[in-house]
Amino acid sequence: MHSTTPSTSATQPGILRRAPSAQLLAHLRDRFGDRLSTSEAVLLQHGRDESFYPPRPPDAVVFVQSTEEVAFLLACCAAEKTPVIGYGAGSSVEGHFLAVQGGVCVDFSQMNQVIEIRPGDLNATVQAGVTRTQLNAALQGTGLFFSVDPGADASVGGMVATGASGTNTVRYGTMRDNVVNLVVVTAEGQVVRTASRARKSSAGYNLTQVFCGSEGTLGLITEVTVRLHPLPEAIAAAVVTFPDVRSAVQCVIEAIQHGVPLARAEMLDGLALRAINAHSRTTLREQPTLFLEFAGSQAQIDAQTEIMRELASHHGGGEFQWAARPEERSRLWTPRHHAYFACLQLRPGSRALSTDACVPLSALADCIEQTQADIAEHELLVPVFGHVGDGNFHCMVLIDPHSPGELEAAEAFGHRLVERAIQLGGTCTGEHGVGLHKSRYLVREHGKAGVGLMRMLKDAFDPHHILNPGKVVPSP
Amino acid sequence: MHSTTPSTSATQPGILRRAPSAQLLAHLRDRFGDRLSTSEAVLLQHGRDESFYPPRPPDAVVFVQSTEEVAFLLACCAAEKTPVIGYGAGSSVEGHFLAVQGGVCVDFSQMNQVIEIRPGDLNATVQAGVTRTQLNAALQGTGLFFSVDPGADASVGGMVATGASGTNTVRYGTMRDNVVNLVVVTAEGQVVRTASRARKSSAGYNLTQVFCGSEGTLGLITEVTVRLHPLPEAIAAAVVTFPDVRSAVQCVIEAIQHGVPLARAEMLDGLALRAINAHSRTTLREQPTLFLEFAGSQAQIDAQTEIMRELASHHGGGEFQWAARPEERSRLWTPRHHAYFACLQLRPGSRALSTDACVPLSALADCIEQTQADIAEHELLVPVFGHVGDGNFHCMVLIDPHSPGELEAAEAFGHRLVERAIQLGGTCTGEHGVGLHKSRYLVREHGKAGVGLMRMLKDAFDPHHILNPGKVVPSP
Repeated sequence: MHSTTPSTSATQPGILRRAPSAQLLAHLRDRFGDRLSTSEAVLLQHGRDESFYPPRPPDAVVFVQSTEEVAFLLACCAAEKTPVIGYGAGSSVEGHFLAVQGGVCVDFSQMNQVIEIRPGDLNATVQAGVTRTQLNAALQGTGLFFSVDPGADASVGGMVATGASGTNTVRYGTMRDNVVNLVVVTAEGQVVRTASRARKSSAGYNLTQVFCGSEGTLGLITEVTVRLHPLPEAIAAAVVTFPDVRSAVQCVIEAIQHGVPLARAEMLDGLALRAINAHSRTTLREQPTLFLEFAGSQAQIDAQTEIMRELASHHGGGEFQWAARPEERSRLWTPRHHAYFACLQLRPGSRALSTDACVPLSALADCIEQTQADIAEHELLVPVFGHVGDGNFHCMVLIDPHSPGELEAAEAFGHRLVERAIQLGGTCTGEHGVGLHKSRYLVREHGKAGVGLMRMLKDAFDPHHILNPGKVVPSP
Repeated sequence: MHSTTPSTSATQPGILRRAPSAQLLAHLRDRFGDRLSTSEAVLLQHGRDESFYPPRPPDAVVFVQSTEEVAFLLACCAAEKTPVIGYGAGSSVEGHFLAVQGGVCVDFSQMNQVIEIRPGDLNATVQAGVTRTQLNAALQGTGLFFSVDPGADASVGGMVATGASGTNTVRYGTMRDNVVNLVVVTAEGQVVRTASRARKSSAGYNLTQVFCGSEGTLGLITEVTVRLHPLPEAIAAAVVTFPDVRSAVQCVIEAIQHGVPLARAEMLDGLALRAINAHSRTTLREQPTLFLEFAGSQAQIDAQTEIMRELASHHGGGEFQWAARPEERSRLWTPRHHAYFACLQLRPGSRALSTDACVPLSALADCIEQTQADIAEHELLVPVFGHVGDGNFHCMVLIDPHSPGELEAAEAFGHRLVERAIQLGGTCTGEHGVGLHKSRYLVREHGKAGVGLMRMLKDAFDPHHILNPGKVVPSP
């Protein structure tokens, strides 16, 4: 499939390489010393991700420690039109940071300072390399937490760059909804703060949202001010089984329509439950299952769960399993958290190609049902997980990583799913981002004129395409 | 003051006029017939707003009815580099649609179709000229409502263009938070849908947010898909008086920190209360007062109000006046809704220059107190209103509209307030937008590099500056 898509040339070795000159490397080494590495192991570590792309290592990795260092680095690289690729926690899944044209990788792991926590403003400012668990640890005792949870312990800067979200987005929003402002270094090495710390502003174009989801192709994010939320008084978790996907999905949609502020609402299909039972030695019914979380005061939780019980019962849901104490909740949700690894065990030695379609809520049941029919027709092994309240679901296509035929079949399945999602009014990617892998679908989703505007934006902010080249907007 | 600011040249008559040619007007008249007007009355109506700028009428007004018509019009005007200015309900306040270079005004009032309501997706698609009250009327019976309420019965397209918000933003977010996607016509007359209808997406740059708040300077918005919210089961309103501004503000901030989902939280100062008493023949205490609204189930409201009573009592708040039934709530809130006109009556014959500072919550009390000291020092007559939960407040500077000295003093006061807000980490405009009036502050707020990026965006999307020229980004 790759060979028929517009983004291919950038993914083929040797098409265009823009390695840093010896002079540039010497100049950077003067400034960064041992924090510049060209060791093979380090380059390789920064040149491969969870995707199926072969490794594409950069020519050098610089471990930066400040915004000023990033500005220096970008100014140097801009002068020679050498590519610069940002690297957070390395947890992205669509080939985001593969150095397809070579260049210098900027590793943010040493920019890991929590700069300021402002409980009175419900926000905090961190360096881009701070991870979400590190930030939440720093927030202990404030009564506040940082909500965005994409599963992996991603860096906050990386989460902004990919527009990440996760299991509690249904309640607290995506990364886009939780950014107050950014410090960004431009392609020319200028430092920009995108907005004030006010909770809202109409003062000019929304630069914050321009950079959020831009995947390092418009500028490098060095500092992030994020919104914080009050910790709920209480949390309760529940698991409930449904006769079919449609009933489970409809139950959640109706809860949202009733204004029930679900904290989490995850659906796993029967195959995923089979994997979980085998892996965790549980005896859950191998049917579509909702993993739910409620948050608030105990009275609020009681009111929410009463509505939820009624809706579930109406849709043929089984008995609720409940848990309120942290360790019980953890036990109840553990199968969900381990689902990815459990599913890999459905086929020992396999790897997973994960899809990321997101559709309007009313189309979600149709989209999953049609996708399951596709899975059956093509005899694929594909457990399905859904962030049901967002209309977003992932299919884990389990394949033999050494079989080109299986990879091709998986890609073809993903292609049909994207087409289906877009026809239903949805998107090719709800939360994983574009990277290398999804750029082929942008014209299908946004039209030529829409992608034309994206390209104008790219050309304006990065005229020499030194910022993570080959990603997001396919070259014309 | 105007004469010392970078944006001035665009506001001075005769500096640069780009009137449509006779040929262009004839071409447009062929297509639009009677829906193109050059009558003096119509031009004047479209050339003045609530600001203090003298009228700047366009050369023609076209009453469009479809996206295709807007595309046709823009393609024609682009060919001759003639300015095009969008016009919604005419309720903006910063000189947004004044035709400083002449050109063609696009009136959206006949693009007033509610295209589709999708209760299952919690969204609706409307033409840009639909007003918020019209949309809410169309939603009757669905159990859903459109939340953004800037006071005036603004058009939905205009609200997107200015990034509007209002009294219930503290609960439901600004217009930016409530847009799903847009249909936009570009400077070249191309039609772009900015995103799918999915609730979240990571598919490329966030074009929706690029256009939201762009005030017609990057493209013309012709259709909007907005988020809808479930109508709360019950609503309760309350009014409570505090000994000083700081106590009132702190009470709201602590409620937010406790996670109380206030539906509205407006503060009015003692002078505003004096105006209200005189206007509405009420006997409210002439002290800082919170007008509050709670929404949810009755149990939720009870829980919220219990916390709120405790907090208010802790901060020296007086007795709560309560209202639950719609007509009682309306009576209780009527003074707040009439406050603008009541305040104008503090000085018969006066007009108001309204400021729009927005600061981090923790700085709000300081900012208002310092501003009140400034008011006293300069012997100005300025009631103050605050959307306290957002950190946003408006000062109504009451002046004799025929006195250049008073206008200058009011502008100087506004200037000091902007400086104060920015120093406290805030913004010159929380919700009114930039228009002509605030562009002078963008460099102060965003720095040269930030405004440089905004200008790059403008130059890329509108290379000949035909889209609402002179607004948002000052010319270099």
